Parts: sequence; structure tokens; C-alpha cells
Amino acid sequence: MSNPPDLSRLSINQETIRQWSLPELVEGCARAGIGGVGLWRAPVQKYGVEAAARLVREAGLTVTSLCRGGFFTDRDPAARAAAEESNRRAVDEAAALGTGTLVLVSGGLPEGDRDLHGARERVADALAVLAPYAASAGVRLAIEPLHPMYAADRCVVSTLGQALDLAERFPAEQVGVVVDTYHLWWDDRVGEDIARAGAGRRLASFQLADWITPLPAGVLLGRGQLGDGSVDFRWFHAAVTAAGWTGPVEVEIFNEGQWEREGAAVLAETAERYAAHVL
Amino acid sequence: MSNPPDLSRLSINQETIRQWSLPELVEGCARAGIGGVGLWRAPVQKYGVEAAARLVREAGLTVTSLCRGGFFTDRDPAARAAAEESNRRAVDEAAALGTGTLVLVSGGLPEGDRDLHGARERVADALAVLAPYAASAGVRLAIEPLHPMYAADRCVVSTLGQALDLAERFPAEQVGVVVDTYHLWWDDRVGEDIARAGAGRRLASFQLADWITPLPAGVLLGRGQLGDGSVDFRWFHAAVTAAGWTGPVEVEIFNEGQWEREGAAVLAETAERYAAHVL
Repeated sequence: MSNPPDLSRLSINQETIRQWSLPELVEGCARAGIGGVGLWRAPVQKYGVEAAARLVREAGLTVTSLCRGGFFTDRDPAARAAAEESNRRAVDEAAALGTGTLVLVSGGLPEGDRDLHGARERVADALAVLAPYAASAGVRLAIEPLHPMYAADRCVVSTLGQALDLAERFPAEQVGVVVDTYHLWWDDRVGEDIARAGAGRRLASFQLADWITPLPAGVLLGRGQLGDGSVDFRWFHAAVTAAGWTGPVEVEIFNEGQWEREGAAVLAETAERYAAHVL
Repeated sequence: MSNPPDLSRLSINQETIRQWSLPELVEGCARAGIGGVGLWRAPVQKYGVEAAARLVREAGLTVTSLCRGGFFTDRDPAARAAAEESNRRAVDEAAALGTGTLVLVSGGLPEGDRDLHGARERVADALAVLAPYAASAGVRLAIEPLHPMYAADRCVVSTLGQALDLAERFPAEQVGVVVDTYHLWWDDRVGEDIARAGAGRRLASFQLADWITPLPAGVLLGRGQLGDGSVDFRWFHAAVTAAGWTGPVEVEIFNEGQWEREGAAVLAETAERYAAHVL
């Protein structure tokens, strides 16, 4: 008889099992021996930040990341000021939750704008203001490169190389990067960029979802369960491990089909797939 | 009064105005002073390859490219042999049409396969067989990098850099690359890769479509009319010009909304947008 798989490094992002309340998620993960949860601002605010922090802590789990800050690319000064204020609150919430990692989705092109380089520079400008504030709260900003299909409307940072180019302008303890397989699996440079991130101590989060087709309209909710698609998870796990990553392995799947199922079934399947395709 | 715009380098890919027959397309382009058309194998076969060649030639137009060969990534020997045979016929058709450019869509991952590197190597293997055959017919193979959102199901060549890595294994007169704004606009390395393509005499086709959101389900038919989206066409035109490109500028838009309009209206709008956003 084989030993049960070690799920202590596994973390379930709460959007993966959106149909569950935060207490259901925490109870389910704790019972399964899963080590952590990744949280989102809106449901945490609704539950209460302090109450959420207590709930997770008393269950013996860790909060592996908070999603999300970012949306730094507006040109309008009032919108930029509002984004800065929102990001400071996101930092405060991350600190209250006891997570050192605030995931950033950088933002897309403003309406009618075609200047990707300029937008990426505005991300850097915003990081220069936010990073010291976050560091003083014990929170590291984690730039998440999103798949190039989101470059216009969601995130002008499309590759791990671009994320590192931005992060490396700041101290490593202030700004890191997210390696999410869904966004990066297609890139033949991702291996060398993961090594670069490791060498510079920039790895801040490792997230998993599979790539499945056909993509749904809007391309937001088409992520696949581990093993259902094209991603070679063992390759990614080996790459981040070789780069020094010993932190959580967070599963973050947005998929309407999964949300229609029983939460417990999704959790059990995710743990099985993690054991089969990652460990 | 200003001079009318020079449309002699403009080419209309026939899928841009799919609602038009080939004679309608050729007549419309010739009347507007547009210099060329890009053709697809299926409608050309239906019309008759020799007849299509004569129709275009007698209208004083050129065939700027034929779409498409490719789909080289199968593992199964019988499927690979069938693809090779189909690609030889595509070369023959390109030669008969008098175009020196056969556009290649390389193919995605086979069912259940997660090895992108291996699939790209099978593309190289197929090129090694096809390129000399094409060259002897006066046809150059043009590797088209497709947007990374097609990497799993359509084309494992996702960046211009990857396309050049493949093309440069062969003589420049045998294998070139396609620069299509829709697929490449997000990539911060595309400027240096266009320069690399120019320096190596690898530029074989320059195609335009705009990037608009939200993407439709399946993400095939969501390309935008020039000026409707995020692409900086003037930047791309300057980049390929600086790299030595003096050839056709081919507009290839797959958009169901455009196909529901009068063909003449789409043609007139495309010419206007070309003058406003490219020239």
C-alpha cells in the first residue's frame, strides 16, 4: 500500500472552488491535508478581513497569496490616484491576512491607446510608489505575466521576461514575479526566465492551471483542470524547483463547468490531479 | 486637393471579403487601384487553379500569397505522409498562381501531447523535405507565427523569434517568415526580430489585422478592421520598411461582422483605413 500523497505544499485558490464559502474552503482544505489557500479581495472583504485571517489561521492553513492589486496603466491622474489608493488597501489586507504575497495584474491599454511600451512604463512608475509601502508592511508585490491574449484589456505584461525586466528595477525583497502555467506554457523562453527569476530571488508564487481548447468567448473562464490539457506540469515543477522554489503550489482554475459541480468533488479531483501530474 | 492614396502595394486577402466570389474580388480590387490579392487554397481549387491564375493576371493584379500549407506536427506516419502530399500540391498551386509565397500554419499539438519542443522539431523535419521541392518550383515557404493562444490547436510557432529559429536552418531563398500584426503586436521583442528577419532576407509576407476585444468563442473570427483596435500599424510599417521590405501589404481580417456587409463597403473601408493608419 502506497503512502497518501503529501499535499502540504498544495494551495487551493478560492476561485477554483468559487461555489464554496470561505469557511467551506478552509474546512475542506484542512481536512484533506492541503497546506494553504489563495484568496481574493472581494470575497475576503465580504467575509471580513480580520475574520478571514483568523479562520484560516485557526485551521492551521496559510494564505499563500492575495489576488489582486494592479491595474496601473491608466493615463488619467484621478484614475491613477484611485488605483494607488486601492493598491495600498490591498497591501493592508494582505498584511492582515498574514500573506507576504500580493499578486498584481498590471492592467491593459487605456481606451484608444496603442502604446504598449508607455503602458509598461506606467506600471513601473506605480511600482516605484507602491513597493516601499508594501515592503514596510511585510508584503512583497508579485508581478503576474498574463497570457498575450490579455495584453489589450487586462495586462500589458505578457511574458516572464517582461515581468522580470520590471521587477529587477526594484529590490528583490520588494518585487517578485508569478509563474502561472496557464499564462506561460507556450513560451520557449520560460525555462531560462524561470532560472533567471530563481537566481535573482524573484520567484514569489507558483500557480497551476491547464490550457484547454476551444477557448470560450471573452477567454476568461476557460482554464482547465490539471491534466486535461496541454501543460507539462512536471516540467514546470522541475524548473521552479531547480530555480530554488520550495514554496506553495497554488491551483487557480477559472472554469464555469467546475463551478457547477459539488465543491468537495472539485477539491478531491484537484488533489488527485496534483498527485498524478505534479508530484 | 490631395492626391488619391497610392494603393499599389495594398493586397486584399480573399478571406477579408469572404462574401465576394473570386471574380468580384479581382474586379473590385482592380477598379480601386489595389495591387494584389492573397488567396486561399479551397476557393481557388473550387474556381480552378489555372482559371484563377488567368483571372488575376488579366486584371493586372498579382497574387501576393497563397494560404496555406503546414500542419506538420502529427506523429502518426500516415498522417505525416498525407500532410507532405498535401503540401506538395499546395506548392504546385502556388507556382501555378504565380505567387512566390506559400504561407505555412505549422500545426498544433497532437491529441494528448504536451511536448511543444518535439512538435516544433517535427515542423523542421517537414520543412527539410518540402523546402527544396518548393524552391525548385520557384516558391518560398513562409512560416507564419500565430498568436500564442493558438499554440495548442493550430500553430506551435508562436513568436517571430521562433519562426526565425526554424527558418534559419534553411537557405533564405527557400524559407522565410510572415509578419502578421494580429499575431505579433503584443511582443516586445518583435522589433528586433523584424530587424533580424530583414538582415537575413527572411521577410516573405507582411499582413495586417487589428486586435479587438472581447474575443469571440474559439478565437478565430475576432480580428479587427485596421484602426479599430490596439495595433500600431504605422510602427509595424516603419519597422518592416527599415528592415528592407518593399513588397505587398496584405490585409487579412477574419471577422463575421465584416462578412455580413456589402463586399464593396468592406473594400472601400479597408482602403480608407490603409491610407489613414498605414501610409
